[in-house]
Amino acid sequence: MNIAINDLRNKVIGTLKENFTDEESARIAEYLLWAEMSGIKTQGLLKMTGTEPIQDIKPKHEIRIERDTKLSQLINAGAYPAPLVSQQATDVVIQKAKEHGFAIVSVHNTFSSNGAQAYYAERIAKADLIGIVMARSPGSTAPFDSIDPLFGTNPIGFSFPTQNEPLVFDMATSAMTFYGLILAKSKDEKIPENMAIDKDGNPTVDPAEAMSGAILPFDRGYKGSGLGMVVEMIAGPLASSAYCDYETYDKEWGSTFIAIDPELLVDIDKFKADSSDLISKVKNARRKAGVDSIRIPGERAASDYKTAIENGVVDVEDVILKQLGYI
Amino acid sequence: MNIAINDLRNKVIGTLKENFTDEESARIAEYLLWAEMSGIKTQGLLKMTGTEPIQDIKPKHEIRIERDTKLSQLINAGAYPAPLVSQQATDVVIQKAKEHGFAIVSVHNTFSSNGAQAYYAERIAKADLIGIVMARSPGSTAPFDSIDPLFGTNPIGFSFPTQNEPLVFDMATSAMTFYGLILAKSKDEKIPENMAIDKDGNPTVDPAEAMSGAILPFDRGYKGSGLGMVVEMIAGPLASSAYCDYETYDKEWGSTFIAIDPELLVDIDKFKADSSDLISKVKNARRKAGVDSIRIPGERAASDYKTAIENGVVDVEDVILKQLGYI
Repeated sequence: MNIAINDLRNKVIGTLKENFTDEESARIAEYLLWAEMSGIKTQGLLKMTGTEPIQDIKPKHEIRIERDTKLSQLINAGAYPAPLVSQQATDVVIQKAKEHGFAIVSVHNTFSSNGAQAYYAERIAKADLIGIVMARSPGSTAPFDSIDPLFGTNPIGFSFPTQNEPLVFDMATSAMTFYGLILAKSKDEKIPENMAIDKDGNPTVDPAEAMSGAILPFDRGYKGSGLGMVVEMIAGPLASSAYCDYETYDKEWGSTFIAIDPELLVDIDKFKADSSDLISKVKNARRKAGVDSIRIPGERAASDYKTAIENGVVDVEDVILKQLGYI
Repeated sequence: MNIAINDLRNKVIGTLKENFTDEESARIAEYLLWAEMSGIKTQGLLKMTGTEPIQDIKPKHEIRIERDTKLSQLINAGAYPAPLVSQQATDVVIQKAKEHGFAIVSVHNTFSSNGAQAYYAERIAKADLIGIVMARSPGSTAPFDSIDPLFGTNPIGFSFPTQNEPLVFDMATSAMTFYGLILAKSKDEKIPENMAIDKDGNPTVDPAEAMSGAILPFDRGYKGSGLGMVVEMIAGPLASSAYCDYETYDKEWGSTFIAIDPELLVDIDKFKADSSDLISKVKNARRKAGVDSIRIPGERAASDYKTAIENGVVDVEDVILKQLGYI
């Protein structure tokens, strides 16, 4: 049902405040509402439901800065929720890159995933920087030719400043998200064919079997698998995080945020004129038969978000609102 | 036929010296022999054949540094061959990143492509840096839902230092390389199905029709298309290069080289221990039925190169050797 955004925000903050400070609650809520309003439902309020809801996370220790240089920072999240610590990391990567032209910030030891990488990437591009964001998650996806879930669903996001809204491209390197499996299981639904294998490597459409087996790389091939491995490396070992941990299931997510100032190479105004022109060339290209309009990466999410802001309401699944006691 | 590496190198340098200095010829030859010895035949000596052989490239002006900061450099290649200027760019990105922890170097206005991104990426990782290399080429590949060849085949390469040989992952974001089309056409062969479309957007297996039409993204979907767009952006506008130029066909390739010192975040010895461990976990994972061994990205190329070095010979197609007058 449609619910007023301000009302929903207050309710979400109210729930979060049972375990977090006012400021922490506001920041986590900000992310959750953004995902919900952007139509990225598997990364939004759904995270407040299930067996490990975000509001019930018990941090183990304070957030610690473990390395800090002019161009970088390594953050130990103390098992705080990733959407909170990753916003802090995004702030730091922007501030350092604005000052020096480049920055890289990694976060390890978060409990829960970042959610949608697009959120952090978009903020980097809004600061007139190019963003690259990667996150690893506990093992769920098999490398090409293997049947063990060594990699996470390992999303990667890129963002670019333009003359208008940033270009934001965000994808999982797995054929589907882990939340997709959870959702299918909770609704007692099957998953599409050629998405996953069971623990013995046989094709399966049963989400529970896929959860104890493995999801396939997004292209079912060596390229998608290679990209998943790159993310496992950059958001795993480089971030001091766990990696390939499906046997120990460390429940440790890792993320790396990179920001690059285009001015290192070209004038920002020229870059933004060219990036906008590139997007418009894609948007206006000849279309395949049956295609009404060519969609630019991130276009649907940005449009959903804009609509929500304009109307002041967002459509949330009744079952989620009921479970949280909001209706 | 097998040909002695030293003999082949001298012959290649001899051919190149008709247009280039001794030093330039030696560097271009170094790249070409590496690709040939690594078994990356479409990016090796084949570049000395066809309608625009690398040895016949006529540069338009000297190589110019157009922007230079502590962390970056923009190079105007003056229409010199990319494998020459991109080696210079690789030297610079390594030197700056070793000094400051990070560097980005872009090259525009090269004539001819870089060839295999793995070559440059590997050199970056051998300097104990993480490498990201991207190159755009003249329009040949259609974005998802479009039938216009707006993007190049747009390869992307990543490399990581380990305790042993670097991990190097290199892929085209298109379903096949443009050289693959040239090769098929020259042999009067068809290309596999679902690789390309003709100029009206119909599926085709005719390489000539594909050349005037478009190659598909590597996954035939929006993710591969999005990655192609990211490369077009980072090796196009960010590199001051042409982009989406299939109508004007500017014949201008662009490349961007990024190097990141893992020490910005973790100790290099720890990183190398973990990256080697990650690779060995993938290598030793349970295999899909019928798979003899799980291949790590770059493993076959590294093994081919090692074999060539050990035997002192490399296997080159007779037709190429004849055409160059080497046999």
